Amino acid sequence: MDIKTYLSLKRQQVEEALDTLLPKPDNDLRLHLESLAYSLKAGGKRIRPILCLATAEALGREFAPQLMPIACALECIHTYSLIHDDLPAMDDDELRRGKPTNHMIYGEAGAILAGDGLLTFAFELMSQTDTSDLLPDRQRLRIIHCLAQAIGSLGMVGGQALDMAAEDKPISLEALQMIHKCKTGALITASVQTGAIIGQAAARQFQALTSYGNSIGLAFQIVDDLLDVEGTSAQLGKASGADAKHSKATYPAFFGIEQTRAKAQETIQSAIDALADFGPAADPLRELARYIYSRTN
Amino acid sequence: MDIKTYLSLKRQQVEEALDTLLPKPDNDLRLHLESLAYSLKAGGKRIRPILCLATAEALGREFAPQLMPIACALECIHTYSLIHDDLPAMDDDELRRGKPTNHMIYGEAGAILAGDGLLTFAFELMSQTDTSDLLPDRQRLRIIHCLAQAIGSLGMVGGQALDMAAEDKPISLEALQMIHKCKTGALITASVQTGAIIGQAAARQFQALTSYGNSIGLAFQIVDDLLDVEGTSAQLGKASGADAKHSKATYPAFFGIEQTRAKAQETIQSAIDALADFGPAADPLRELARYIYSRTN
Repeated sequence: MDIKTYLSLKRQQVEEALDTLLPKPDNDLRLHLESLAYSLKAGGKRIRPILCLATAEALGREFAPQLMPIACALECIHTYSLIHDDLPAMDDDELRRGKPTNHMIYGEAGAILAGDGLLTFAFELMSQTDTSDLLPDRQRLRIIHCLAQAIGSLGMVGGQALDMAAEDKPISLEALQMIHKCKTGALITASVQTGAIIGQAAARQFQALTSYGNSIGLAFQIVDDLLDVEGTSAQLGKASGADAKHSKATYPAFFGIEQTRAKAQETIQSAIDALADFGPAADPLRELARYIYSRTN
Repeated sequence: MDIKTYLSLKRQQVEEALDTLLPKPDNDLRLHLESLAYSLKAGGKRIRPILCLATAEALGREFAPQLMPIACALECIHTYSLIHDDLPAMDDDELRRGKPTNHMIYGEAGAILAGDGLLTFAFELMSQTDTSDLLPDRQRLRIIHCLAQAIGSLGMVGGQALDMAAEDKPISLEALQMIHKCKTGALITASVQTGAIIGQAAARQFQALTSYGNSIGLAFQIVDDLLDVEGTSAQLGKASGADAKHSKATYPAFFGIEQTRAKAQETIQSAIDALADFGPAADPLRELARYIYSRTN
């Protein structure tokens, strides 16, 4: 299979769905909704919804288009986290994916509210009940609970809090791994788990897929660290070397570039190994793991 | 019935439940969790969870203690909205309920993340599935959906966006009412609706209770406007005259104080009228409506 064609096709499906989801009020709320749409449409690889789709398909289920709002909710959550992370009080970034960040266009208050709105909208999307024939209410609640835990104070939000606290301070490797796991890994794993619940994974399958998710979540962050050291701004769509600017701890800072590359490759292999019991339907997940690593070359 | 005794008893129940809910991690996330607890425990009348409890009871159901996390979720949402509204980029308030606001203690980034964490935690609380004998999954999803809509971009978050946009600008009475309805009314109404769903309201009862919620939501905001003009800082727990400082439109600015008082009284009466078909079990809701007005005297 050609992963690039696969990703481009799925990405198009996700973006078409995203385009129709946000309400377009014909009143004073228009500008606020525009601020959500601005960041939601500012590109991005849509990896999290695609992981959700690909995981359901790995279990031999076609992903029903009626469930697309759940996959889109994952992208809303990711986008909210980027908007808040970019704020002046946080990482203070002016560019994201080559475009001005949300607060550069809509102001600080506007950006905080855009993030709040997207996070809330994600839960609105996940709690629709008009498709209970495709996804029983109990499984839908499981998804909401799993996501809320992954992105809350012991997950993504907590990871950002740790990251902020660690700025300009020497931290241990354990502390760095904890930050990565919470800040990036938790939502990646939850995206896979969401697909696993939709695909009606048995307990053992759910466990294997969770392990896959954990590994690619880690790989994702290691590769991001590498790109930040090696990459150009064009590849990143933001200023490279930003981590060094904020004196943030990174994998290359601990291990050097070569050992970090080896670590990334190892982690990708763990992800692929976790899928040993799955047939060819899981090939997109396997290729996705390899694709993450290929970004470093 | 004595509403003050009732409120104090229910408030104690809510606060005891709130005290046990937040995780208390024994690691670097401790400080972040502390920032959530700081605002959650900073007082407040707990009106939203109490409305939820009182509504379920008005329908003749005892509110099962196992469902208390849902009522507490309403307080988490309210607290998150206060933390974000107080931020320097928003209303820039240094005091709330007589205590330093969250960002004065934990910094701007800390306060943004405390709010994000509380909002997410609310959905974690609402999506627990260990009590489906007391609340069927479908009804739980209805609550989540209802809340997400009420506090999202067409509700509470949108209201705050409109409020920010209206600062230092002349706005119409319609625009002011829209802000009130979204910013304050939506969560109040949803708190009543949450209690109505838990209490298994029939369609007509649900409608009547929604109408009650809409009226007290409006009354709440009118009374807040009055207190801001007339009240002392001690009563408000924040600087009085804050609205005038920000040149915010208020009811007294449109109608004068006397007519605004009459409007508040009228709205309270509408709330009580909406409960005409309910028996004495709804007395706490009726007294709650009167209590809101009594704050102006």
